[in-house]
Amino acid sequence: VGATSPEAGRADPRRVVAELEQLREETGTEMGAQRVAWTHTWAQARAWLRSQLDDLPVSVRVDEAGNMWATLAGASPRALVIGSHLDSVPDGGWLDGCLGVVAGLEVLRCFAQGPPPPLTLRLVDWADEEGARFGRSLFGSTAAAGRLDPDDLREVTDADGVTLAQALAGHGVALDDAPRAAIDPADVLGYLELHIEQGPVLEDAGLALGVVDGVFGVERHRVHFAGRASHAGATPMPLRRDPLVAAARLIVAVREQARDAGGVATVGEIGVHPSIPTAIPGAAALTLDQRHRSEAGLATMLDAAHAAADAIAAQEGVSVQWSVVQRIDPVRFDPGLVGLAEAHVGAVAGDCRRLTSGALHDAAMMARAGVPSVMVFVQSLGGVSHNRIEDSRREHIELGVAALDELARAVVRRGEAAG
Amino acid sequence: VGATSPEAGRADPRRVVAELEQLREETGTEMGAQRVAWTHTWAQARAWLRSQLDDLPVSVRVDEAGNMWATLAGASPRALVIGSHLDSVPDGGWLDGCLGVVAGLEVLRCFAQGPPPPLTLRLVDWADEEGARFGRSLFGSTAAAGRLDPDDLREVTDADGVTLAQALAGHGVALDDAPRAAIDPADVLGYLELHIEQGPVLEDAGLALGVVDGVFGVERHRVHFAGRASHAGATPMPLRRDPLVAAARLIVAVREQARDAGGVATVGEIGVHPSIPTAIPGAAALTLDQRHRSEAGLATMLDAAHAAADAIAAQEGVSVQWSVVQRIDPVRFDPGLVGLAEAHVGAVAGDCRRLTSGALHDAAMMARAGVPSVMVFVQSLGGVSHNRIEDSRREHIELGVAALDELARAVVRRGEAAG
Repeated sequence: VGATSPEAGRADPRRVVAELEQLREETGTEMGAQRVAWTHTWAQARAWLRSQLDDLPVSVRVDEAGNMWATLAGASPRALVIGSHLDSVPDGGWLDGCLGVVAGLEVLRCFAQGPPPPLTLRLVDWADEEGARFGRSLFGSTAAAGRLDPDDLREVTDADGVTLAQALAGHGVALDDAPRAAIDPADVLGYLELHIEQGPVLEDAGLALGVVDGVFGVERHRVHFAGRASHAGATPMPLRRDPLVAAARLIVAVREQARDAGGVATVGEIGVHPSIPTAIPGAAALTLDQRHRSEAGLATMLDAAHAAADAIAAQEGVSVQWSVVQRIDPVRFDPGLVGLAEAHVGAVAGDCRRLTSGALHDAAMMARAGVPSVMVFVQSLGGVSHNRIEDSRREHIELGVAALDELARAVVRRGEAAG
Repeated sequence: VGATSPEAGRADPRRVVAELEQLREETGTEMGAQRVAWTHTWAQARAWLRSQLDDLPVSVRVDEAGNMWATLAGASPRALVIGSHLDSVPDGGWLDGCLGVVAGLEVLRCFAQGPPPPLTLRLVDWADEEGARFGRSLFGSTAAAGRLDPDDLREVTDADGVTLAQALAGHGVALDDAPRAAIDPADVLGYLELHIEQGPVLEDAGLALGVVDGVFGVERHRVHFAGRASHAGATPMPLRRDPLVAAARLIVAVREQARDAGGVATVGEIGVHPSIPTAIPGAAALTLDQRHRSEAGLATMLDAAHAAADAIAAQEGVSVQWSVVQRIDPVRFDPGLVGLAEAHVGAVAGDCRRLTSGALHDAAMMARAGVPSVMVFVQSLGGVSHNRIEDSRREHIELGVAALDELARAVVRRGEAAG
């Protein structure tokens, strides 16, 4: 708790930072955060959250998908939900997910100190946002959005061969019951999530906070080029069929296409076979990840990449094949909530940038379910994410908490006015 | 032995093919040739060669570097040497190296059937041309050329931690004595080697045989690009420092530079870190192998690659570092012998192409030692090398043996005439 007392009835941003540091101490190692979903350390983090909630006049419940809900009953049963996730990647950062949960706890705490609010307030800690152990992200929020099919997940295992169902059972969750966590979007007036940016946009713009107007759609594909392996010395340039040259040309092409379309494209993995200095590879494969805020933009980028790969393959005398890794539609957040958030973030932080998230978030699932949603981002230092060196300035974190608090109050006032 | 008898006193190409097939049977598996130097299977192949030599009026000696020499004394002590290597890579082809030794054996056999030749004839089976087990090629011929320094090899081990010195000792060779295998080039009138091409040039030209006028020099370097690892979705294109895009641009650039310079350039290995679909890599490294027939051409290519890497790194906001893997000077074969070989190969095969070898060979070491040298290449099917599916047409192998035989006779005649 800082030297300056917070305004009466308002969130105390310094307490949030202190609690985040406490959580880091209790659930991290020198390698970073270890709150991987469905592990003992994750359960420890949740036990800490529950102990904080024990002091408040809220009811706590873990739903059929393992999401933890704390509910402060208001005059209306319609709820404003504030949420994020305590789970982390292995060796992760101290803020990714935790920030939004601990900030939401602080907002709930403030409302709990006053008279019963006109709306019900709910804090949610989504289960397994990261998908770090089983490779499937947004488990809990997908179930809440009514989009989880247990059959899709029945065969999923971790690196040790443990099935997702076994891991869930160890934490009291039955995979087949998880769809029963689906919410009725009519019960929810809005969903707010405070999160670190995980990218360099706000730092580059010199801004503490930003308002997120949606989440990029994703086209993730594996592209395989096959040519002719041959001797690096004995094969003249005109007689080569080099799949790595084709892959290199595609890497350059998709970058230009992303720039033209206003999206992003990344090749994060590449491999060749055989992989020896004195042989032209016979095969090269890469993973292409394209993202765009609009469906049309995403389709344009994917079409352009297909066309480029075909043209390059023909020119290089190699073959090309594509396989789908993952496809996700873009999400738009609620325009009214985005505007409201911009007003309050601007008032708190002095300036505000509207941006679209390239990373996935539970908020996207709420928006898909029909819940009016918005996110507020806090500047990330160096744009670093999923790493123990992930960090944000303390003053930016505190501004983020204050902005979430103001925004929540504004939504409650608006809900009250709307009756 | 085929249906048509060979001309009296001339090499029998069909016997060479039959003996190569016998050697394949005795020293290969279904995975290919297994005559890796300093192994039991290699010793078996050499025992087969020695048993063939036992029937001839030749003296056989293994020198201090493990090279096996068979000498047919002639009127002059000055020698024509014919050689190649019985050792292979693991899972290798039946012809790579073996062809030249078994063909040389046949030529020696023919000369041994006649009157004592005017020149001494020597067959050499070089030790460890491939360097497959210890990663250092041309061991025996390097020692014969007077260029082997035991100190360079003292720490060299195989994948199991066995030192080269230990492996040599198991075959009666003392590493420190190996330099004593150095020949006096004044004793050698010429060196001839018949080998498969290991590339697609002759097949592409529709030719059975070619004459090799030299061996490419090599610049082999590792190029490391370092940028900024970041989130594939959360990092806009203008804020990226992507080392893989830089690597891709260099791959394209060095290919164009090789075309312009009349050499070859290959990127056979590439890797990124971290290697995950949703992260822009923080680092990318590749191996660049550039080859050219001339020192000037090689230097031009390397300079151009350095300049391109620097320019690309500056444009992409990444750093670049180079580390040397291996540098080998180009070798020119003896113009007189090359001309003589062209005449006889053309006469035997009907047509002939002069080409420069992109692969290293023991003949390059003989040329470096000051011995007039030349090689004859036999067409490789599909240009495939260092693979069990390596192959050549039987008729092309037979033409190669006949050409070697004619060329050897011509060199002996010329040596006799020169007194």
